[in-house]
Amino acid sequence: MNDVIGTDMYRDSRYIVATYRLRDRENRLAARAEGIAIGLTIGTWTDLPSLRKEQVAAHCGQVQGIRVIDATEAGDVIAEIDIAYPVANLDATFASLLTTVFGKLSMDGEIRLERLSLPEAWERVYPGPKFGVNGVRERYGVFGRPFVMSIFKACAGLTLEELVDQFGEQASGGVDLVKDDEIFFSEAHATAAERVVAYREKARQIAVQTGRETAYAVNLTGPVHLLREKAKRLADLGAGALLFNVVAYGFDVLADLARDPDISVPILAHPAVSGALYGSPNYGIAADIVLGQLMRLAGADMGIFPSMYGSVTLGGEATDRLLAHLRKDSVHRKVLPAPSAGIYPGLVPQLYRDFGIDLILNAGGGIHGHPGGARMGGQAFFDAIAAVQEGVPLQDAAVDKPALAAAIAKWGVRA
Amino acid sequence: MNDVIGTDMYRDSRYIVATYRLRDRENRLAARAEGIAIGLTIGTWTDLPSLRKEQVAAHCGQVQGIRVIDATEAGDVIAEIDIAYPVANLDATFASLLTTVFGKLSMDGEIRLERLSLPEAWERVYPGPKFGVNGVRERYGVFGRPFVMSIFKACAGLTLEELVDQFGEQASGGVDLVKDDEIFFSEAHATAAERVVAYREKARQIAVQTGRETAYAVNLTGPVHLLREKAKRLADLGAGALLFNVVAYGFDVLADLARDPDISVPILAHPAVSGALYGSPNYGIAADIVLGQLMRLAGADMGIFPSMYGSVTLGGEATDRLLAHLRKDSVHRKVLPAPSAGIYPGLVPQLYRDFGIDLILNAGGGIHGHPGGARMGGQAFFDAIAAVQEGVPLQDAAVDKPALAAAIAKWGVRA
Repeated sequence: MNDVIGTDMYRDSRYIVATYRLRDRENRLAARAEGIAIGLTIGTWTDLPSLRKEQVAAHCGQVQGIRVIDATEAGDVIAEIDIAYPVANLDATFASLLTTVFGKLSMDGEIRLERLSLPEAWERVYPGPKFGVNGVRERYGVFGRPFVMSIFKACAGLTLEELVDQFGEQASGGVDLVKDDEIFFSEAHATAAERVVAYREKARQIAVQTGRETAYAVNLTGPVHLLREKAKRLADLGAGALLFNVVAYGFDVLADLARDPDISVPILAHPAVSGALYGSPNYGIAADIVLGQLMRLAGADMGIFPSMYGSVTLGGEATDRLLAHLRKDSVHRKVLPAPSAGIYPGLVPQLYRDFGIDLILNAGGGIHGHPGGARMGGQAFFDAIAAVQEGVPLQDAAVDKPALAAAIAKWGVRA
Repeated sequence: MNDVIGTDMYRDSRYIVATYRLRDRENRLAARAEGIAIGLTIGTWTDLPSLRKEQVAAHCGQVQGIRVIDATEAGDVIAEIDIAYPVANLDATFASLLTTVFGKLSMDGEIRLERLSLPEAWERVYPGPKFGVNGVRERYGVFGRPFVMSIFKACAGLTLEELVDQFGEQASGGVDLVKDDEIFFSEAHATAAERVVAYREKARQIAVQTGRETAYAVNLTGPVHLLREKAKRLADLGAGALLFNVVAYGFDVLADLARDPDISVPILAHPAVSGALYGSPNYGIAADIVLGQLMRLAGADMGIFPSMYGSVTLGGEATDRLLAHLRKDSVHRKVLPAPSAGIYPGLVPQLYRDFGIDLILNAGGGIHGHPGGARMGGQAFFDAIAAVQEGVPLQDAAVDKPALAAAIAKWGVRA
């Protein structure tokens, strides 16, 4: 056994601790854990001469814990294993972090990365959010209440004029942000730059009446080496935020954007493709690591994840852990959560209870599907927010709020 | 139902066809498939006025097939569903491809992306390998036989002098390539540039005796926006290849490197972290897509994947599909496969049968673990290659080949 280090690595600033859930024979667990700790760091230990041991000790992994949590019918056990990896083995990339803790190991049978515990000093090597909750509030001038974000529906094939109309309909409801559909890549009718310019013009016209200029979260796409320039250009043209498919691009690509001081708008992280990593309970990487911990470290200001109200959820425990990652005290700014799918005005009291006000109410069908259209759909959310802020039950508030009344008639209230 | 397109999308150059394996109620399959095809492209169809249908038809997805393949005890079925997505919805990034075919859908319960069928015209938008099998052969001057590649063992904490010694020991065996350990990120004792320069010097000294200059595959790491410059610099300094953790960085980052004409060395793709995507049979993305199809499209010249000889394999069928992706006739150059783990000299006849000569014999323990050390370990592979080329059984050839004889004594022969 590795005899160099015996202290609690969870409190040691030189180590990242990874916890895995795996299946194996119970009598193999100790050797398996040792094999991971040594095999994924310095390769061999027992056979090394003592001088060499001294030399490489700072790079050697360490088994921190082995817990059997269940037995299987096949005679195997399900166990959790904690391995401490020296940060001295990493560089400041997510590629090095992921390759170190789950590179080869991800291919080693039934095993799942469940938790990562990073020392504060090492969290500092990642950029974290440039704006965070407070910065995003400043940026959009939204204080003391949740944000309301509307999602463009079905954009492929629409002309710029039609897109502007759809933007305008949503902005007329007073929503803080309108986000692109994350699958909108086609520039057949309008480039991202053209959309930014046209939507901003529309937003300013509408702001004359509503008093609120709706921001546009444009889908940032294209070759990696052009993304930073494109992001700057879109920001300069008036984009309100950058929607980014982080998992599909890679966490280091997000970190690159977040580290660039000239990209002057918040980043809205989309969870597309993340289910390919977290879907299985037995393989892959836990959802709260992917959509919470890594998103914040890499620099998302706002983070979308599947809500617990839709048909497919992460489950209560994973959602709690995810939220903790976004919001806990840390060296980095906090991330605004945007729980998505199944969000409608009647759910606002529940959303306040579950999330408080540092939250994005992100709705597609819950705005476009309003009987009065997207304008009334946005308005219904603000009616609901006002009611909750005033401590009035939604049904009571709806008496003289036709947008909210129609939303309640369609979708009901979760009181 | 979507009534625009009824032909076979597998043969239609306007469509990418994705095949999913999913679990659902049998009587829900048709609606589910329709929901995917429409929901992930144009959003709605039935309710659209006919003029709008004409306008967006080119962007509309299409259900191509639904096959029940198994029943479950819970009353659900396991089914395969084929959905055709218009390439008109994509840009030339892997982020757009993955987000389109498995963005939101990856989070929609038990579902796995099993196959992607891309029209030839759309394969052309991706760079593909810059060198391919023939280009790599030209580059290293290796013809008519497999390549032999040795893997640095445990590098963290070693001084440059010790690393050079380890390189020299491996190069003395005549191996074509020595690759970095994919977990080697620490530059405490030597930067990548320093290693490239020092190893090359050593390789040239050794080439005076062996007649072969061993190439060094350096681990390309660092912030994304600096990778192309770093790659060029390492190539200019004499790196033989770039080892790249593709899944940890993202396929578009590889594509960026492959598209850059000034990066003048082959790329060796490492599969680190890929198991997080392909490990589960019920979730994620099939291994042959990740390590075969996407690697080739994105520009890997050489591709490492778990061999079928080690303790953890992809299975025969997945390996066959993966190999087909690397080698089939296509608009792109072919990729050299490097099946890894469990490779030793006595396996060479089997490797010839399974893979032919367009292959990398990639060994770590099978070279370093040789009783005579890494030099003899490399030599044993060349002895084995010579025997197979001459049609001589390894045991017979070993009579006057001490390196091969010692390898057979330790690991045996798979005849």
